[in-house]
Order: sequence, then C-alpha cells, then structure tokens
Amino acid sequence: MSEIIPHWLQKQADISPEHLALETPEGKKMTFLELHEAADICAKKLAGIGVQAGSRVAVLSHNSIGMVVLVHALSYIGATLILLNTRLTAAEWSFQLKDSEADLLLLAAKYEEQASPLGIPVQTIEKLPEQESQGYSRHTELDLDDVFSIIYTSGTTGNPKGVEHTYGNHWWSAIGSALNLGLSKEDKWLSPLPMFHVGGLSSLFKSAIYGMPLYVTQGFDEEVVQTAITKHGVTIVSVVTVMLQRLMQLQEAEGITYPSSFRCMLLGGGPAPLHVLEEAKQRRIPVFQSYGMTETASQIVTLSPEDSIRKLGSAGKALVPAQLRIAGDSGLAKPEEPGEIQVKGPMVTKGYYRNPEATEASFQEGWLATGDIGYTDKDGYLYVLDRRKDLIISGGENIYPAEVEGVLTSHPCIKEAAVIGKTDDRWGAVPVAFLVKDKEISTEEMQDYCQGKLARYKIPKHWRWLDELPRNASNKLMRYKLQDQLGEEKA
Amino acid sequence: MSEIIPHWLQKQADISPEHLALETPEGKKMTFLELHEAADICAKKLAGIGVQAGSRVAVLSHNSIGMVVLVHALSYIGATLILLNTRLTAAEWSFQLKDSEADLLLLAAKYEEQASPLGIPVQTIEKLPEQESQGYSRHTELDLDDVFSIIYTSGTTGNPKGVEHTYGNHWWSAIGSALNLGLSKEDKWLSPLPMFHVGGLSSLFKSAIYGMPLYVTQGFDEEVVQTAITKHGVTIVSVVTVMLQRLMQLQEAEGITYPSSFRCMLLGGGPAPLHVLEEAKQRRIPVFQSYGMTETASQIVTLSPEDSIRKLGSAGKALVPAQLRIAGDSGLAKPEEPGEIQVKGPMVTKGYYRNPEATEASFQEGWLATGDIGYTDKDGYLYVLDRRKDLIISGGENIYPAEVEGVLTSHPCIKEAAVIGKTDDRWGAVPVAFLVKDKEISTEEMQDYCQGKLARYKIPKHWRWLDELPRNASNKLMRYKLQDQLGEEKA
Repeated sequence: MSEIIPHWLQKQADISPEHLALETPEGKKMTFLELHEAADICAKKLAGIGVQAGSRVAVLSHNSIGMVVLVHALSYIGATLILLNTRLTAAEWSFQLKDSEADLLLLAAKYEEQASPLGIPVQTIEKLPEQESQGYSRHTELDLDDVFSIIYTSGTTGNPKGVEHTYGNHWWSAIGSALNLGLSKEDKWLSPLPMFHVGGLSSLFKSAIYGMPLYVTQGFDEEVVQTAITKHGVTIVSVVTVMLQRLMQLQEAEGITYPSSFRCMLLGGGPAPLHVLEEAKQRRIPVFQSYGMTETASQIVTLSPEDSIRKLGSAGKALVPAQLRIAGDSGLAKPEEPGEIQVKGPMVTKGYYRNPEATEASFQEGWLATGDIGYTDKDGYLYVLDRRKDLIISGGENIYPAEVEGVLTSHPCIKEAAVIGKTDDRWGAVPVAFLVKDKEISTEEMQDYCQGKLARYKIPKHWRWLDELPRNASNKLMRYKLQDQLGEEKA
Repeated sequence: MSEIIPHWLQKQADISPEHLALETPEGKKMTFLELHEAADICAKKLAGIGVQAGSRVAVLSHNSIGMVVLVHALSYIGATLILLNTRLTAAEWSFQLKDSEADLLLLAAKYEEQASPLGIPVQTIEKLPEQESQGYSRHTELDLDDVFSIIYTSGTTGNPKGVEHTYGNHWWSAIGSALNLGLSKEDKWLSPLPMFHVGGLSSLFKSAIYGMPLYVTQGFDEEVVQTAITKHGVTIVSVVTVMLQRLMQLQEAEGITYPSSFRCMLLGGGPAPLHVLEEAKQRRIPVFQSYGMTETASQIVTLSPEDSIRKLGSAGKALVPAQLRIAGDSGLAKPEEPGEIQVKGPMVTKGYYRNPEATEASFQEGWLATGDIGYTDKDGYLYVLDRRKDLIISGGENIYPAEVEGVLTSHPCIKEAAVIGKTDDRWGAVPVAFLVKDKEISTEEMQDYCQGKLARYKIPKHWRWLDELPRNASNKLMRYKLQDQLGEEKA
C-alpha cells in the first residue's frame, strides 16, 4: 500500500523552525524555517519560468546552498529532478538529457558555456531570483511511491541508465542509516561527495528527515573538512578512501586528533585497503565502512567501528531494513564462496527510466543483482572482492584487482595503485599495474615485493608509472580510462 | 507499493547477536540471539499444537519474557495475534474471541480457571514447552501491509471493535518515535504498561527494530521502576499520569533524583494535570507528553521537554511521518477553535476487523476522525480538551460510559442509567453511576450485579439515585448537568 507522509522539509519547518538546517565554511547559516521559505520562494520562481507538477528538470551544479534549496523547491512543485555529473562531456550530458526527457536544465553559471549547445532551455541558478514569481500548489505530502530523482549510472556495456529513486527510496535510506548510526540532537553531517551522486544527495534528505544540520562544502578540501570537525562541531563525514587518506596525511602533518564528538567517518565508494583501515584505527577515527551504489540510494551494507579490526576488510552486514545474499553458479553460495552480491530492501530502486529490459535484467525474484563479486564469511559479513566487470580471469584463475592493489599500496613507496586486465594470447588475460609513487622505487623492486605475498598468477605482468590515477568527481577510480590507455599502447 | 523488510528479530540476531534484548528486575537477561532462538523454539512448539501461517491466536497474559517470546514466535509462523486485556470479564473475552474468530487462546496459567468456560481451545504459556515440537516455515521477511495484531477498543456506542495493526503500523510507530526521541546505543526502555495495550506492545517492537534492550516488568511498581532507572541503566520509561505521580511521591519520600542518563519519561494515556507537569519540571524529569490511541499504534503527537513550560498542557505536534488537523463544524478549524482531532500517517490502522461500517465511519479522506476534541494554538501545538466525548480514562485504562450503562440497564430493576467520570487524585478519573430505578434495589445489589459482567476498573466507584435523568427537549441526555451535580457535591 502506498504510504503518504508530510513533506519532510515543511515538517521540520513546523516542528523545528529555529533549528539549524544548513551551514557553510564561509559562515552562512540557515534554519529549517528559513530553508523552507527559501525553497518556497524558489518554487515560485520556477513556476514563473513554467516548471509545474510533472515537469522534468535537470540540474547541473556543484554542491551549494542554492542546490539544496533547488532540490527541495522541485519537490514542493512535484517536479522530477534529473542530476547531471559536472565532470561529463557535453555529449554525455546530451545523451542523459534526451534519455530522461528533460524539459529544462538548471545549472550553476560556471557550466553555462559548456551546456549552451545542448538544445534544451537553460536557466542559471544564480539568475533564477531575477525571474517573475508565480503561485503554485505546494506538495505538502509526499507519496513514497512517487519517483523524485533520476541519476545516471554506467553499466558494463551499453549506454548509461537512469536510476529512478522514489521518495520512499530516499526515506528508507535515511532511516536505515539512522538505525545503524543512531540519531543525536548533536549531529551535524558533512558530505564532500557531490550531490549529483546519490551518496552526496542522500545527506540532503537525511538533514530534512532527521531535522539535522548539513554542513555544505563545494567539494572536498581536507583543510576545510578537518576544520569543520575540529572547530565547527561536525560529527559525521561521508568520504571515499582517497579522502580519508588525505585527511589522515593532514592529521599527521599537523599533529591533529579529532574530538570525541566526531562519531562517524562513513566510508564508501569501493573497498578500502587494509593498511588505510589500520591507520584509521590507530588514529581512533571511527570508520564505518560501507557498500552501496546508485541503485541502493546510498549505502546498504555497513561495518561498525567495533567490528573493524575483527572483520578487517569487510563491508559488514545489510542495514536493518535490507537483505543481502550471494548468488553462486548454481543457487546461493555457501559461506566463503565468492559469487554475485545481491541485495533487497525498500531503499533499492524500482528500476531504470524507460528501460524495462535493463530493469528486468537487474532483478531476480525481487533482488537487485549488483554485478559485484563478493562472499560472506561464516558470520555473515560481506567481503566485496570486486566489480564483476573488473574481474580478471587468467588461465582459468580468478584475479580480483582489489586484492592485488591492497598488496601494492602496502609498500611504503607506493601512493596509489590500480590493477586491470590486459588481454593475453596465452592466458586470456594478465594483470597490469598502474602505480603512483610516493618515493623512488623501481619496477623490479615491486616485483620482488609481490613474491610470496601474491600467488604467481596474481602478480602484475606489466607495470606502468603514472603521476596520478584517473578519478571521477566523487574520486572513484575510472578503470576504463586505464583500459583506454592500454588500448592506445597496443595500437 | 507493498514493502518487504527482513524479520526484525532475526535481523537483530544477525547483526547484534550478543547485544542485550531483554532484562528483568529478577536479573534474567537475554541477548538478541537468545531471544531469536527462544522464539524459534516457541514457534516449533506452537506448530506442534497446530498453529500455522494464517492461524488466529489470542493471547491473555501479563507482561513477561514468555509473552515477548510468544509474540515474536507468532510472527515467525505468520499467525495473527489477538491481544486480550487481562482485567476483562469472561463475558468480555468471549465477545472478543468470537468477533476476532480466534482459533486458540494462549494464556498465562493464572487466568486458566477464568478462561476455561470460553469454548475455545486453550493452552497455558507455562506448559507450552512440554508440547511436541514440529517444523515450520519461518517467515524471514515481513510484508509491511500484512496485519499482525488485533487489539479491541470500545466506541461511544455498540460493541468493542478490533483494531488491526499491520507490521507497517508497528514499524512506522517505532520510526516516528525514534525520529522524535533520537536513538542511542545506551538506550534501555522500560514499559510498565501492559503489552495487551498498544502502548506496552509498541516497546516490544521498538526493542527489535532498534536493537535495544527492553526492561520487562510484570506490571507497575514504583520501587521497581525507580531502581531500574537509578541502578540498572534504564534511560526511557513509558508511563501514564498516575504512574508518574507515584514515582514522584517515591522520589520525594526517599530524596532520590534520577541520573542524567535517564533521558525520557514518555507520558501517555490522557491529559496530565498542570501541577503534575510542573512538579516533574522541578524534579528535572524529562517528560515527553504524548497523545495517541490504539488506532495510531501508540503515540502520534508529542511534546518535547524543552517546550513543556512554554506550552504547558499541550500534547505537542505530530511526529515526523504523521499529520494532525482539527475539523470544525464547517471545514477545518482555525487556530484556537476547538473541533474534532483528526490524524493521518503510516502508523494509523487501516481499519477494524470485519467491521467495514465502523472503519468507514472513522475515516474522512484518509484521515482518522478520533472523536476527541481539541484545538491547535497559533504555533500549531495541540491541546486536547476532551477524549471521545464521554471517554473516562482511569489509571490509563479507557472506560466507555455506553458499555457500563448497557450493563447497568440490563438489570430488571433499573429504568435508566448514565455514567460519567469523576476526577480522582490517584486514578485521574473514576466512573460514577447515576441510576433511576423501576423497582426497589440497593447500591450493594448493583455492585454485585456488575461483578463478572464488567472489568473491575469499569465498575462505578460512586452511585447516585435520581428520580429522572436530565434530558433536553429532544430527550438527549445532558451529561454536563450530571457533571454540575458532582461539582456541587464537592463544593
């Protein structure tokens, strides 16, 4: 049965009008009443340029208070929000705008020039206040079955697919997280992850659903994050591995420890190397490892700090409203047996926009088939081995890049490492290492270092040294760029 | 869309197996894994006596670990739970058992004799372990749209009605409460309210959904509750007004203050007198006033301690997933204008069992028409003026005058009867009978007559004999004239 709840922002404006809703490093602050009023004014401006219930509005912006206001304003109107990644090319945006049937593109002024040839009406967020206001019928209730947002994700093959999130998906994601982390009146959440990814977007909804202040930063800057934790009362930060590493380097450089009020470093975006987790443990940083994807509206599996040593390297267990299983080659996998990670729960997307084939292909008996490879140990803890597309099969043996990368980055001279497969006439595929060094070291020394730590077939057969690894806006490694590089070398 | 979540108890047994689930004043403790195993064993015993998915099982018991285990066991099997009030008479039980189409009555041994003539298969909870075990198919998932429990409530007229609660109603009630009170790993909840009422039952589900220990007491004893707070780490207690008063009297007598870890006294079951709230404020007891009823699966409106002085006497605002409105004579009431309190939200029952007329009569456009009278002030805070017109709330138990009047007039010597509430220092209110006799009969004879027909708390505590009842021109009873008469007696 479809559930109806009051609009979460309007609710907080009613029950917690004077509570802080938003804060920035520049010292700008907004209460829930002010945020509600700003969203209402914004909705009137949007109505003035023709946005109405059912409109399909794309947004292209870095994180800002303006973006938060805009997202809530679109829900007040009852429009659908399509989020575009600021790092894509115009051609990629164009595909997503067409595929999502967007009526209008709202963007931060700095992207105006890039987006001008997209053949869609464009409005800059900065100039929206100059538009005429018009009345609109505010959606004071949210139907949890209604789709609110669409975020594109790439599959192993084919075009990107628009993941639809209902209001219910966002609600349940926030509730699942609260049941895991607890809820305190003292909480203040900082997410340096972009809001055009679901990991960043989810913090915006948590703020409205919990009545909790959100600390809004334009992007990731370790100085800003550290100051927010040590000086501005931030208690929870969402990060990916490379951000955690940079934060710890800064701690080391400046001899800083975090106050005990800092209670959660929510770590997502791929498996973290053990030595990173060990260092965080030494620094008493309460790291909650997590596993999730766009389709799960943020994390769906997490590991608590108290388990982080006992179950080092695990992503943990499914959140209270969620379930996890491993599909083997025939039926469900046994403990310790790798297979496809499948998840289920009310935060999981109901499907891809206008793509019933992809939707059908992704679900089995109500379970989302993630395409990721992992296993559960005898206690039911999930270990993510790798994304299925990254699996390297060499001479019949499976090689999981994350495992090899963990060994490579454990060397003190290595800053970052990525491993991908290269087609090979004899073995089918062989692993190739891409390395970023911290201190001088040779390929031969690295080969020696791997002996005894990795089975022979897992040791990279080719070595490439780079200045930095290619990463996307949320700092996630873009392996396909490395594949491209290998391809060019071949040609 | 119907949402599926993993069974909440099995989930806690998986993610928090070693966490404390239950504790008693006698020092008995049970972890979530132990509780899960006990519920599983209990389910096998129930299967052994023929209980299966879809069975309708009535339970008649005071609070105990055995009752908690039983409730979870019934959900593992997929049976429907019908909760009987232990204070009712055999005649009242009989009606509810028939109306709910119960297949079986499970009861604490002490009620066996009273319940033996009910004409339904009976099994004592204490002797259930002696039964043969049988395999069953455990419900590892909960469909939030499925009805799990039925609790009877009386209306102003007619027979008691069976309020159906879905798993979703209980889930949303627990989540609404968590968003209001926050969630801490340190929490331990004590509810001395009986679990056959929804206020007591809800704490059992909160325990499983939050992964939080429940401190189980057989009933209310102020010494036990005080010791639980001061010595056993209880952080939240659910009470009705009379319990709060007795706790404060004990504090006064023993010079006790509660530790700062005690963070919530959740007060329900009818409006609290101002002097009680003021005394609690002086004693720094963090009282959260609340308003709710069986139909809302526990509280739906609450007032935080920080507002308790500024808004003294208010029940507060609707929980995050809930809404509140006041229906006036024509359309919605303005601020300060009294009218019928109406509520909406996913914790509100979908209706009464096998009683579509009552269900239809209780809902207007998706809003539950509570029958209670109140108003909201200009800031939107609810003030409850009167419960369901004539409802008498005595020590947290609801007494419906129509039901008592029906028993009184069934006596051949009684021509007319009217029952109203009289304020009482200990119980909040007690029922008073106004009688017009047809033939000679004494108060004592009437008292005897009520025994066995009415639960003890429903039997009038004061008796008045009149020549006729005050009625208006259209022969409608003017209860306020009886109230006036009581007032004059006092003066």
